[in-house]
Amino acid sequence: MRAVVLLSGGLDSYTAAAVAKEGGHTLDALTVRYGQVHVTEMQSARKIARALEVERHLELDVNLAAFGGSSLVGDGAIPQDRSIDANEIPSTYVPARNTIFLSLALGWAEVLGAGAIVIGVNALDYSGYPDCRPEYLHAFERMAALATRAGVEGKRVRILAPLLTRSKAEIIRLGSDLGLDYRLTHSCYSPRKEDRPCGRCDSCILRARGFAEAGLTDPALHP
Amino acid sequence: MRAVVLLSGGLDSYTAAAVAKEGGHTLDALTVRYGQVHVTEMQSARKIARALEVERHLELDVNLAAFGGSSLVGDGAIPQDRSIDANEIPSTYVPARNTIFLSLALGWAEVLGAGAIVIGVNALDYSGYPDCRPEYLHAFERMAALATRAGVEGKRVRILAPLLTRSKAEIIRLGSDLGLDYRLTHSCYSPRKEDRPCGRCDSCILRARGFAEAGLTDPALHP
Repeated sequence: MRAVVLLSGGLDSYTAAAVAKEGGHTLDALTVRYGQVHVTEMQSARKIARALEVERHLELDVNLAAFGGSSLVGDGAIPQDRSIDANEIPSTYVPARNTIFLSLALGWAEVLGAGAIVIGVNALDYSGYPDCRPEYLHAFERMAALATRAGVEGKRVRILAPLLTRSKAEIIRLGSDLGLDYRLTHSCYSPRKEDRPCGRCDSCILRARGFAEAGLTDPALHP
Repeated sequence: MRAVVLLSGGLDSYTAAAVAKEGGHTLDALTVRYGQVHVTEMQSARKIARALEVERHLELDVNLAAFGGSSLVGDGAIPQDRSIDANEIPSTYVPARNTIFLSLALGWAEVLGAGAIVIGVNALDYSGYPDCRPEYLHAFERMAALATRAGVEGKRVRILAPLLTRSKAEIIRLGSDLGLDYRLTHSCYSPRKEDRPCGRCDSCILRARGFAEAGLTDPALHP
């Protein structure tokens, strides 16, 4: 079965895509350039798409920076060294980002005749984003069944979130078991010169904690 | 209350916005340039935004033509002179378009603190599009309540579709009663030279039928 995977260039979407591929899906990858300050992601997404041998890799521009409202699109500073509380929504939250990404994937899935969309969200280490919760994904799936021609004809598009209930450490172990090359990935929200991760943003902290808990070293830090 | 209105340049979204304004909403307008072949819409959207005295008018580029799958983004010819059957989905259907538009509006609404999104869909003359049905809009609203920080904090964004159960003739009578200038609007899917409507696409046919049933002449055709 064909699936559209939302590929960000990070560790989670790479692993989610690999799980879907392992499960027998043929993949098409969609990467959205949404005005994020960390453009290094795009290079990583291209490398990952090649490694996954996707059928097509589409890069789409949607300038969410025009809305503002998030430090991830340049509206305020990226928080550093904070203690991460899953009940608090941080300034890196981009309003409705996953809804916009899933909607775009839904449109492309319908054109391609794909039966699934793969997204790398996880609810445990979700860093407080509301659009990473299971009840949200279920509601999106129900809406999608009513939104499209495919849905009207009884061909529902499923939202696959294989990492949803996994911790970062579990994701990293899973990916390592699948033989994924995490050197290709990029997680940092505010990379310094020469694309080196800052080590201090939420994304770097969660990644480092994940590798530590998995008992593995991060190959992107020790190439 | 503040509302984000999806403004296309057509007659329906103009009327829906005017109804919301009449109902006491302060409007911000979002127009999406999605790769439609009928770019004249954008000029109309700007004129209408001025006429409505919106607070902000944001034009956003999202190239849905990259997906293909619709004659409205240049994939195949726009159908002409067909008998319109509300149970058949025509080639002008753009996969997941309203979902993508509503998602973008949802993101902006959250940044602005707007409590509503206004969309000019109607279910009677909806020309067979699945994403113009009431059950679809309700499902979107439920999903949106789970998607955003505002939703988590109990501030739901409502989807206002004041034209949902109105025929095109009823919409035109309503707009005329509100004193709207329909010369500003553009409906044709495939305009000829000098921006003259073709008179043969679904949109032209539905508009002409609407004005005839309303007992009014179309000021855009008889300036």
